[in-house]
Amino acid sequence: MPVRVVGFDGDDTLWHSETRFHVTQGEFRDLLKRHVPDADVDTRLAEMEMKNLSIYGYGVKSFTLSMIETAIELTRARIPTADLEVILGWGKRMLMQPTELLDGVEETLRGLSGRYDLLLITKGDLFDQESKLARSGLGEMFLGVEILSEKNADTYRGVFQRRGIKPEEFVMVGNSLRSDVVPVVELGAFAIHIPYVVTWQLEHVDEEALPRQGWRRLAGIREVSTVLLDDFGSSAGRP
Amino acid sequence: MPVRVVGFDGDDTLWHSETRFHVTQGEFRDLLKRHVPDADVDTRLAEMEMKNLSIYGYGVKSFTLSMIETAIELTRARIPTADLEVILGWGKRMLMQPTELLDGVEETLRGLSGRYDLLLITKGDLFDQESKLARSGLGEMFLGVEILSEKNADTYRGVFQRRGIKPEEFVMVGNSLRSDVVPVVELGAFAIHIPYVVTWQLEHVDEEALPRQGWRRLAGIREVSTVLLDDFGSSAGRP
Repeated sequence: MPVRVVGFDGDDTLWHSETRFHVTQGEFRDLLKRHVPDADVDTRLAEMEMKNLSIYGYGVKSFTLSMIETAIELTRARIPTADLEVILGWGKRMLMQPTELLDGVEETLRGLSGRYDLLLITKGDLFDQESKLARSGLGEMFLGVEILSEKNADTYRGVFQRRGIKPEEFVMVGNSLRSDVVPVVELGAFAIHIPYVVTWQLEHVDEEALPRQGWRRLAGIREVSTVLLDDFGSSAGRP
Repeated sequence: MPVRVVGFDGDDTLWHSETRFHVTQGEFRDLLKRHVPDADVDTRLAEMEMKNLSIYGYGVKSFTLSMIETAIELTRARIPTADLEVILGWGKRMLMQPTELLDGVEETLRGLSGRYDLLLITKGDLFDQESKLARSGLGEMFLGVEILSEKNADTYRGVFQRRGIKPEEFVMVGNSLRSDVVPVVELGAFAIHIPYVVTWQLEHVDEEALPRQGWRRLAGIREVSTVLLDDFGSSAGRP
C-alpha cells in the first residue's frame, strides 16, 4: 500500500529546540556553580525533571519549575531570590524566541505537501507548541496538528483512529527513536529517524531495543522525499 | 435539526477547579502579607496572570510561575527562598489532587451517553487536563476529547470541521459565558450555561455582550437532559 500520510515531529525535527534547552542549562550551571561549586548540576537537574515528569509533563514551563526547584534544593534554600527571578526570565525568553527552522525544512515540506497528507505530531506543552507552529509559518502545509501529552503506541493508535489512517499507509519522521520510531513501527507503520545534534537524556533508547525493520535513518530532512518514493513504495508506478 | 453532539467543559462544569485556585490564592495572600502587609496581593497576582497569559497560557503551572514572580516583585526580591519552595509545593499539590466531580455529573453523563455523542472540550494545560480526565473515571463516556489552548469561534470551528459536526446539531455545556457560550452561539450552535460558585476574573463577560438567544442558563447539570429534549428539539417525536 502506498504511503498516504506523513507525520512530522516538531521539536528538533522541524525547528530547533534542544539546543535552546542546552544553552539555558549552561547558564543555569554557571549560576549555581557560584553558590555550590562542587555540585553536579546537570545530573541533579536531570533527576529533578525525571521526578517531576509525571506531575508536570513536558515543556518549557515544566523545565523552568524544575530549574527553580533544583536551585533551591542544591543550595539548601540559600540561593538569593533575585537569582530565581533570573531563572524565571530564562523560561520566558525560551517561550518567546522566534521559531528557528532546521535546514531544508520549508522546501521539503512544500514539495511533499502536494503529494501526501502531512500531519504535525508533537508532544509537550499545548500552548507552547501551538505558539511555535504559528510563528514557524509552516501552518498551512499541514492537514492537521496533533499535540500529544506522550508519544507511545496508544497515543499514535488514537491518532490513526481519529483520522482514519491505516498503519501501512503512514510514515513518521522525527529525531527521537523513543517517541517517533519505536511506537510507530510497533503499530505496523513506518518511521524515518533523523538524528538531531543533541538528544535529551530522557529520550535515549538502547540500540538493542530498536526494531529490526520498518524504519530508516537519514542524515537530513531533504532526503525524506526520495526515501518515501523508493523505500516505502509510494510512487504511483511501483508495485 | 435534533441535537446530536453535546460538548462539556471540564473545569468547574464536571469537576471542581476554581475553588482550588481560590484556596491556594488565600494561602498565597497570607504568606505575602507577612512580608508586605499593605500589598494588594490579589490584584497584583491577577495583573501578573493577565500579563503572562500570552507567554504561558492557562493552567496550574502558569499559575505557579505567576505566583512566584508576583512574590518576588511585591517583596522586591526580599521574600526568603524557602517561601518560594512552599509556593512550588502548592502547585504540585494542585496538580496531584484527586479529581472531585460536581454533584450529579456522573449520573447525568451516563444518562446522556447512550443518546448523544459526548465530547469533552476544555482549555488549559494538555498534560494536566488529560491527567484530570484519567483520574475522573469519566473517560469512557466521551466519544472524544478536545483540549484547546483557547476557546473562541476559531477553535470551536476547528472542532466542528475535524469531527464533521454541523452547528445546528451541537450544544455546549459549561460554566463560562466567555468560553462556553458566546463563541458557540456565534457559530450558530447552542449553549447551556451552568454557573459555578466562583468565576475566575479573566472569564467575566458583561451581560450586555451576551447573545440574545441560542443559549439557556441552568442551576445544575441534572437539568441538562430535560432541556436538551424540550428546548432544543432533540426528541425524536418533535418538529
